[in-house]
Amino acid sequence: MDTPDMDTNERFAALRKILAEVGDLGSAAGLLSWDQETYMPKGGLEGRAAVLSTLAGLAHDAFTGDQVGDLLAGLEEASRAGELSDEQIALVGETRRDYDRSVRLPASLVKQLVEARSRALPAWQQARAESDFARFRPHLELLLDLKRQEAQAIGYRQAPFDALLDQYEAGARQSDLEILFRDLQRELQPFVRAILDSGITVDTMPVRQSFDEERQKAFSAEVVRAMGFDFEAGRIDRATHPFCSGIHAGDVRLTWRSQKDDLRPAFFGIVHEAGHGLYEQGLSREWQKTPLGEPASLGVHESQSRLWENLVARGRPFWQYSLPLLKRHFPELQDDIDAERIYRAVNEVRPSLIRVEADELTYNLHIVLRFELECRLFAGELAAADLPEAWNQKMVELLGIRPDSDAGGVLQDIHWSMGAFGYFPTYTLGNLYAAQLFEAAERALGELAPAISRGEFEPLREWLREQVHVHGRRFKPRALIERATGEAPGQAAFMRYVRRKFGEIYEL
Amino acid sequence: MDTPDMDTNERFAALRKILAEVGDLGSAAGLLSWDQETYMPKGGLEGRAAVLSTLAGLAHDAFTGDQVGDLLAGLEEASRAGELSDEQIALVGETRRDYDRSVRLPASLVKQLVEARSRALPAWQQARAESDFARFRPHLELLLDLKRQEAQAIGYRQAPFDALLDQYEAGARQSDLEILFRDLQRELQPFVRAILDSGITVDTMPVRQSFDEERQKAFSAEVVRAMGFDFEAGRIDRATHPFCSGIHAGDVRLTWRSQKDDLRPAFFGIVHEAGHGLYEQGLSREWQKTPLGEPASLGVHESQSRLWENLVARGRPFWQYSLPLLKRHFPELQDDIDAERIYRAVNEVRPSLIRVEADELTYNLHIVLRFELECRLFAGELAAADLPEAWNQKMVELLGIRPDSDAGGVLQDIHWSMGAFGYFPTYTLGNLYAAQLFEAAERALGELAPAISRGEFEPLREWLREQVHVHGRRFKPRALIERATGEAPGQAAFMRYVRRKFGEIYEL
Repeated sequence: MDTPDMDTNERFAALRKILAEVGDLGSAAGLLSWDQETYMPKGGLEGRAAVLSTLAGLAHDAFTGDQVGDLLAGLEEASRAGELSDEQIALVGETRRDYDRSVRLPASLVKQLVEARSRALPAWQQARAESDFARFRPHLELLLDLKRQEAQAIGYRQAPFDALLDQYEAGARQSDLEILFRDLQRELQPFVRAILDSGITVDTMPVRQSFDEERQKAFSAEVVRAMGFDFEAGRIDRATHPFCSGIHAGDVRLTWRSQKDDLRPAFFGIVHEAGHGLYEQGLSREWQKTPLGEPASLGVHESQSRLWENLVARGRPFWQYSLPLLKRHFPELQDDIDAERIYRAVNEVRPSLIRVEADELTYNLHIVLRFELECRLFAGELAAADLPEAWNQKMVELLGIRPDSDAGGVLQDIHWSMGAFGYFPTYTLGNLYAAQLFEAAERALGELAPAISRGEFEPLREWLREQVHVHGRRFKPRALIERATGEAPGQAAFMRYVRRKFGEIYEL
Repeated sequence: MDTPDMDTNERFAALRKILAEVGDLGSAAGLLSWDQETYMPKGGLEGRAAVLSTLAGLAHDAFTGDQVGDLLAGLEEASRAGELSDEQIALVGETRRDYDRSVRLPASLVKQLVEARSRALPAWQQARAESDFARFRPHLELLLDLKRQEAQAIGYRQAPFDALLDQYEAGARQSDLEILFRDLQRELQPFVRAILDSGITVDTMPVRQSFDEERQKAFSAEVVRAMGFDFEAGRIDRATHPFCSGIHAGDVRLTWRSQKDDLRPAFFGIVHEAGHGLYEQGLSREWQKTPLGEPASLGVHESQSRLWENLVARGRPFWQYSLPLLKRHFPELQDDIDAERIYRAVNEVRPSLIRVEADELTYNLHIVLRFELECRLFAGELAAADLPEAWNQKMVELLGIRPDSDAGGVLQDIHWSMGAFGYFPTYTLGNLYAAQLFEAAERALGELAPAISRGEFEPLREWLREQVHVHGRRFKPRALIERATGEAPGQAAFMRYVRRKFGEIYEL
């Protein structure tokens, strides 16, 4: 390909052709990974790993070859000459961001990371099973060291940790998050304390009974269909953990798991994943297989899942709509279980050791803990050997409870064994964005409770589609949120939301 | 890659690396195709086609690049110098065969074929739905023309049609098959005639009752588990048509469909596909992702499915073993249904219009018909416009029945709409090989009936594994069958088998 002779249209066409090939390889890998978690017989593990590795290598080679660099250089010149549309400028800018990140990582470091992760994962699994942090420690140390090298290779403006944060939440910086999380903690911690001191306890019995698991799924599927999840372009399958995978246009997969004696894991899991799924189904078809057809960030993705899970499905109006559905699927439910009792049952606040089981409020304190420890580990201010004790002390400080084992503490999450440092903050960013978006949607559409109580989700869904989904990565997460809500990401809307909701439940 | 400086080991390593990449791409495509037939939401069709096209293009580029040609030339020199083992010689020879076939096809012809097929398939579906051959005719003509060009491009020794036959059954030639099929027809047709004239009719009621479909699957799965299909390295899922797909080592997928009022489609479908599946599971791990780790041919593949479906599961000893199982899954079955009645019920001989519903005997006359018409079409001796009438006349001549519509005649099979001329003979070759292999297995192991009647399939399975599965493409199909059975492929063993079995049932 002789890029110097190309005009701008030809360069875009050539770039999109390469991006489409990379995107198709990613789609194939996406389906193979989904299958690995749902249907693959266990004998296929080794063969599957080889195929995934080959696909990743081909995608990397196609993307980091000279062509993309040359095309980007030519298009950036056209951009400087004022020849590109806003969308084209964003496409070039985001592709440049991905390209630089890819080419800056030395192949030797990528290989070391892949190998370190592949050894760390089973070591973590065993360490957790035996509740023995020492077994995992050397792997954590190696991964930290390699990720520090990665940050240096990629580059950063302020703090090395920014290079890691940026890959999950474009433009996120440690210094900003420290302020944001400090502000959040300052507001949230006393509010949780007040709830615990209120003396009021929520009765969770209405959702903690025996519920046939297939009927849990049928009920949940009916709800997410009403939310607008398109089953002609998606499906739901069982897996050991819930996730959402956008395979390619017209194919978005959710997974679920369930507990026989508790409605919440299946129901809120499916609604949560369907929130992700609506985002994937709402991405631009026109820009598919380019950054403008990809989700803006993990934080923005999480804002969509949390908005539907918490702001909608843990709301009082939602249960006015869905209790009759629930009773149709479970006619054996006692007559005296009404929408108000379910609403309260799904809004219990109770500090607990395990993040993924935490309520809407204390969840964010789990994230504050992880973010602080990650920063200190990464900066070398905290030795891996001292991590379990630091974790336990911080749990006491933030949540007032102390893990009695590493398995129930520092070893509970998979993320660090995958080298995913800087990932955790996106969960809380998602919660904060969700509250801001919901407030902004109500400013635009009027109070949403009446529609939600009738099971009418279209106005909210379409507003999210217009404000968030269709833009893909056209705007950076911070700009996208500002554009949609009129304010920078912060904790104010979230705190307004939880004070109103939990203040009423706990009579504060 | 500087192949001239490589030694033989380095060349093999380099070749296997490329073959592994091509194999991994094929595995990914295999899973995507399986998923398309089983779980993919229909909205994913367009996106899926794009991914599959990208994977096929990458595999083609990787395989037909200069490297493989250079490596093969170097290895062939080493072979002439006597430096290679028998297996290495076979590996080089089979890779050469694939390579030449790939590079000889001009990209423009490949593209025309892809496009012609993609238009022919929906045209065939519509033509069949409306029973209107004229709608399909121009597509058939174009495909025939393109396949003639393909044959010229690939090359052949005797007849152009050999170039097409060879891709499904390596080494198969039109002239040999004409003799084989003529001999088969000469023996088979009067035998079928005698059965129909016997005045004896088989009572199919025992297998034509209401059978819960999930229990049909559970029963069938129990049988194929006993056959040795490894569910740790495979699975069974519903699809609109039954097939077997070997994804990669440790992952072999079967599909099934069922009829509520007939046990046969689900049960024999699953056993048939499990026969294919045992072959896939028995391929060499050492040689995976090379021709020596691939099935020898479609005919040999079909011999494995037919052997289990017909020689085993349509045999009397088999039902002595499996009737108690069947009754455990269907306790409501009448007490007077015994193994003998089921055995007879699944061995009804009755000429019918549709190949896939045909019995073990008349099935092969359907193939004789298709092969003869294909040869005449391909040679230009028969015009596409005259095909429906030629089909119908041949049906009368071979089976004594005449289709009353194109849908029930010339339009019934998907194969020609995919340009798969030369594919049909492999079905009957499979039947003939199966009978030869079963005879040879009994010569080696002694009579198999006692073991089968106890549900002991291991001796037979292991014999097939040693004689057929592990060799992959190390031997050409003809040589593989000769090696395993001591005789060239022919109709004698098959006719001995059917005369013995059906001669008894129909008292001839």
